[in-house]
Amino acid sequence: MIADVLFFQVASIIVSVLAFGAALWLYYWVKSQPSSNARIKEVGDLIKKGANTFLAKEYKTLLSFCGVAALLILIFLPKFIWQGDVLENVTMAIAYLAGSAFSAVAGKVGISIATIANIKTAEAATKGIKKSFMAGFRGGAVMGMAVVGSSLLGVSLVLLITGNTTALLGFSFGASSLALFAKAGGGIFTKTADISADLVGKVELGIPEDDPRNPAVIADNVGDNVGDVAGMGADLFDSNVASMAAALVMAVSLDKLGGGSVNASMVFCYAAIGLLASIIGVATARMGKKGGPTRALNMSTYVTTGIYAVLTAGATWLFGFEWRIWAASAIGLAVGVIIGIASDYFTDDTKKPVHMVAEAAKSGPAFTILSGISYGLISALPAMIGIAVSALVSFKLCEPLGPGYAMFGIAMAAVGMLSIVGMIISNDAYGPIVDNARGLAEMGNLGDEVLDITDQLDSAGNTVKAVTKGFAIGAAGLTVIALLGAFISEVNDAAAELGQSGITGFDIMNPTVFFGLMVGAAIPAVFSAMLMLGVDRNAQRMVAEIHRQFKEIIGLKEGKEGVVPEYDKCIEIATAGAIKELVPAGLMAIIATLLVGFIGGVQAIGGFLTGNIVSGLLFALFMSNAGGLWDNTKKYIESGHNGGKGSEAHKSAVVGDTVGDPFKDTAGPSINTQITVVSLVSSLMSTLFLAFSLFK
Amino acid sequence: MIADVLFFQVASIIVSVLAFGAALWLYYWVKSQPSSNARIKEVGDLIKKGANTFLAKEYKTLLSFCGVAALLILIFLPKFIWQGDVLENVTMAIAYLAGSAFSAVAGKVGISIATIANIKTAEAATKGIKKSFMAGFRGGAVMGMAVVGSSLLGVSLVLLITGNTTALLGFSFGASSLALFAKAGGGIFTKTADISADLVGKVELGIPEDDPRNPAVIADNVGDNVGDVAGMGADLFDSNVASMAAALVMAVSLDKLGGGSVNASMVFCYAAIGLLASIIGVATARMGKKGGPTRALNMSTYVTTGIYAVLTAGATWLFGFEWRIWAASAIGLAVGVIIGIASDYFTDDTKKPVHMVAEAAKSGPAFTILSGISYGLISALPAMIGIAVSALVSFKLCEPLGPGYAMFGIAMAAVGMLSIVGMIISNDAYGPIVDNARGLAEMGNLGDEVLDITDQLDSAGNTVKAVTKGFAIGAAGLTVIALLGAFISEVNDAAAELGQSGITGFDIMNPTVFFGLMVGAAIPAVFSAMLMLGVDRNAQRMVAEIHRQFKEIIGLKEGKEGVVPEYDKCIEIATAGAIKELVPAGLMAIIATLLVGFIGGVQAIGGFLTGNIVSGLLFALFMSNAGGLWDNTKKYIESGHNGGKGSEAHKSAVVGDTVGDPFKDTAGPSINTQITVVSLVSSLMSTLFLAFSLFK
Repeated sequence: MIADVLFFQVASIIVSVLAFGAALWLYYWVKSQPSSNARIKEVGDLIKKGANTFLAKEYKTLLSFCGVAALLILIFLPKFIWQGDVLENVTMAIAYLAGSAFSAVAGKVGISIATIANIKTAEAATKGIKKSFMAGFRGGAVMGMAVVGSSLLGVSLVLLITGNTTALLGFSFGASSLALFAKAGGGIFTKTADISADLVGKVELGIPEDDPRNPAVIADNVGDNVGDVAGMGADLFDSNVASMAAALVMAVSLDKLGGGSVNASMVFCYAAIGLLASIIGVATARMGKKGGPTRALNMSTYVTTGIYAVLTAGATWLFGFEWRIWAASAIGLAVGVIIGIASDYFTDDTKKPVHMVAEAAKSGPAFTILSGISYGLISALPAMIGIAVSALVSFKLCEPLGPGYAMFGIAMAAVGMLSIVGMIISNDAYGPIVDNARGLAEMGNLGDEVLDITDQLDSAGNTVKAVTKGFAIGAAGLTVIALLGAFISEVNDAAAELGQSGITGFDIMNPTVFFGLMVGAAIPAVFSAMLMLGVDRNAQRMVAEIHRQFKEIIGLKEGKEGVVPEYDKCIEIATAGAIKELVPAGLMAIIATLLVGFIGGVQAIGGFLTGNIVSGLLFALFMSNAGGLWDNTKKYIESGHNGGKGSEAHKSAVVGDTVGDPFKDTAGPSINTQITVVSLVSSLMSTLFLAFSLFK
Repeated sequence: MIADVLFFQVASIIVSVLAFGAALWLYYWVKSQPSSNARIKEVGDLIKKGANTFLAKEYKTLLSFCGVAALLILIFLPKFIWQGDVLENVTMAIAYLAGSAFSAVAGKVGISIATIANIKTAEAATKGIKKSFMAGFRGGAVMGMAVVGSSLLGVSLVLLITGNTTALLGFSFGASSLALFAKAGGGIFTKTADISADLVGKVELGIPEDDPRNPAVIADNVGDNVGDVAGMGADLFDSNVASMAAALVMAVSLDKLGGGSVNASMVFCYAAIGLLASIIGVATARMGKKGGPTRALNMSTYVTTGIYAVLTAGATWLFGFEWRIWAASAIGLAVGVIIGIASDYFTDDTKKPVHMVAEAAKSGPAFTILSGISYGLISALPAMIGIAVSALVSFKLCEPLGPGYAMFGIAMAAVGMLSIVGMIISNDAYGPIVDNARGLAEMGNLGDEVLDITDQLDSAGNTVKAVTKGFAIGAAGLTVIALLGAFISEVNDAAAELGQSGITGFDIMNPTVFFGLMVGAAIPAVFSAMLMLGVDRNAQRMVAEIHRQFKEIIGLKEGKEGVVPEYDKCIEIATAGAIKELVPAGLMAIIATLLVGFIGGVQAIGGFLTGNIVSGLLFALFMSNAGGLWDNTKKYIESGHNGGKGSEAHKSAVVGDTVGDPFKDTAGPSINTQITVVSLVSSLMSTLFLAFSLFK
């Protein structure tokens, strides 16, 4: 059965609409859950207000950034506006804005539901863990469905309307530049609040986590939402769009040679099936009689994976797609799962690394840091090998299909890995919702039994988070490798127009390539350092504010009835600081790309992207896993091991956790986005780099 | 004037002998300095005995390792012994053993003089800072002269006797494998002792540094010698030999085409001039009327640099060498100095980074760690760019000279950067000598005035150390890039014999290359993590031993007259642990190289080496600089800033310093050697990788 690409595009749009339907249904389901506790409602509203304030400010800053970027695109891309077709430049600029807008809307939807679901989850915990789990999970699933639905819808519409794959890169770039800011800005916000709240609250004053006397406690809960919900959602929206864009750029150019549209059809077909599988996975997820919430989350991931593999195999058979490409996509998915399991090993509190770090914590904070850094560094190895092997195998699998198919194989491995991204985002957004619910339960005085339930849900969220982060990094890795292929396509198109000879690759022994490689490798290190210093500076500002409040507000420290801290002051500091600190890091990465491109031309950029990808993945994996490891080490000790709460080991573990916070929630996951942004800037600028560079 | 390569080889041998003469003269000068204090003599002898014990054990382990390696070389390299010329294999094995032996002897000489010079320096401090400086500096210079003299002598002799550049790689590999163990083993030893001594002594008991009651205090002083003197000496011996070997491999193959020997002549000529310049620099170094010891050390480096540049220009004019190649070597040297200055900025206690970290220390250990890691990451950027630019410029400069000259230009930049290595080692070995002298002055009760002098000398040693480390890493970077060129030469020779087509480079878009790149990039991370975990484990063993002694030896803690701790127990633990922990890390790197080579063949190895170089340099720079930064932050606070000794900021800074110790003295500098070893293993195995690999 041969079907046209139009068929699959329409099918993709229908599945996207289905996903929106599912999101709406889940939204109303969550909203219909009871919420009666006035105190929880009050605090929940504060969180919602804070999150929306941050989002509004962030989006305002972004609006100026995107406006300037769109203007530059209008003038320069894909060609100088006075040289090429004006309409193409307009299309590009609009596609760029659409990419940003789609991502922004998905983020907004996520925040809206998360700040409702946290209240419902807290309330539901009074009626048992199963109900509470459902409220949290389905809240997260709204975000999952919204993100993946809008990414598939956006990609389908852009290609359907423009018929132009370069516009797709513009759309993807829009999504990326939003993600860069959302992830980095949200990451700085959340860790500023988290660290400051812990430092003054837990360490200095010895009051419990989520204690309502702490002026930073609401900011901390807001941070979970803007960092983990909106930020992570934007990140995965970006990766998902980029993987589809990279695959489609190559598919369309292969289809042109073949005269049909089978490859593009395949991309849409697989992406739609992935979303469908995620919808089914979400709809069927529930806590069984046996096993806790972790099992429920993991089960739904495996169900989705299985459905995807079976349905794509069926579609491949039905529509006569290439089995080799199917295998590439299946390998991508399998390797994603393996990377997730490896990340889990290094962060799970039942495994050796956590126990070793907890042991080292007995000798003081320095040993906690040293052993955590060491295991974090080692933890990168399996994922690095996994990504390398999946690229190698999918390349070799698809190479016999003809020229260009090898890189397409890698792109399809990335599409495969990201196919279940709907499920991944659902699991991921579940985390901050139940984390918030825990805070609300504490502030609403719901009692120890309820806190115990929310603690269980929260712990499951942490475990699953490690897996989803590994997954996200792996997928970004494969995607950017595919984008390297897309970059070559773009360069060759441009070279053909300029009458220059094209390129087939980048030779390491070419010193221009090597130059790019060295500089590109240093960028993720500098980028993450800038973000961490941003958190550091911002947290110092907030700590000073918390100290001020405890000093000036009489009765606050003692918990006098009716005395409340000025929560909004802390939220303001986190907001203003995050926006102030994220801009230099983002600009640094983009300016470095432009400098390397205009100095060394496309060859240097090839090296630059490669160095950036390789060292970026290494740092992202190291930082995410080390952070998760320290977090769980602290929890492991708190649960009574190696001296338990209050022991020397616990104090050391708290230091480790504080170091790990910006590692895992600010710098580590932002690197993903930095890599994608840099790749897309390069692809978009390829014509200019080709025409104007110091060296060739 | 045209002179034959023989002339320059003989000249090099003469200059080497001159260097040995200078070393001997300095040795006797130092030995003739007065030493009368019995207590200092007693402790000094303990340090000497400990250092020799460690060296004997380490060399014994190395002997078995080198024996096995030599046997494998004999059987397999450069060809299977049953296929090629037996004599070639024997030559190779002997060259390998010679490389190890030369390096071992240089290390032994260094330890011998350092453990005399420390006593003399301490004593001389009673007569003023100038005398004391001279004793410390000239002690270090013995090591400098011995190392560089023997590396130039070894390289000249091997080429003179065998006329075979592959044997030179064998010699270089011998030097490297020794360096890997000396640097990593010494690094583990020294930090085990340092951390444990500080942890129990300073942190738990609040007794001063170098307090004779501390059972680990002698081990700590021994560690300075085996880690910084023997280890750093072996490291720079290795880099120096590798840079000459890489340059000579290319020079000889260029000379074959040209029919002369001008390029090989040039390598020897420049290397000999570098050594000569270092001899002059060492001979003329002294503390002037103005300026402290730091100025004296830096001045002698600049004098050497100037002499080198002038003399090589003269030689180039006299012998009609290519000016472009001269320029490449001068650029290498200039970039080396720039890298040193950049490292200095990030670790100097009068500059912003130290002040910022000291400020962060007021908020606790977590912020100290976060800001230190951040500045450490940023500090890698200038050096990465510097290395990239010097490679790019020297390549472009020499490219017009003909095919093959471009890579030769890079090799000559490395030779240029390493030309003043004699001076660098002298400065570097000065550090542990004066550090030891400080300890001896404390233990010998020489009074506060003397301690003040040794403190000044010690502080200069720390500042200069950062510069020399940056220098060493930069030089290693350029050397291994040159070795990549040597690897291609080797592969093409082998391919020609096998009747296969050769290679010209490594295309990043080849997934086999990319596979190698990903894995290669992960290796330095894993390698350094394994070393740090080794320090961690070993320090825990030693801390337990120190606790035991304080508990069981009655009167020790109180400092009762006549009660001494069992110093040798701690030395034993450090020794046994270092040897136990270094083996897995070294083997891991070598085995990974073999696996990648036999899986992906020479293309994967090309990627592997590149990934290894790039990420290795990044981690080496990051770790060395972050470590130096924390060290100086602690000293900065101790000198009365931000609360001074005993303040919260100081406690945080101690945690930072403890994390930084294995960063800067174990993992960071060992990565250099790891990169070189892996490069040489690849070059030596090229025939086998070409013949037997899973993918091509």
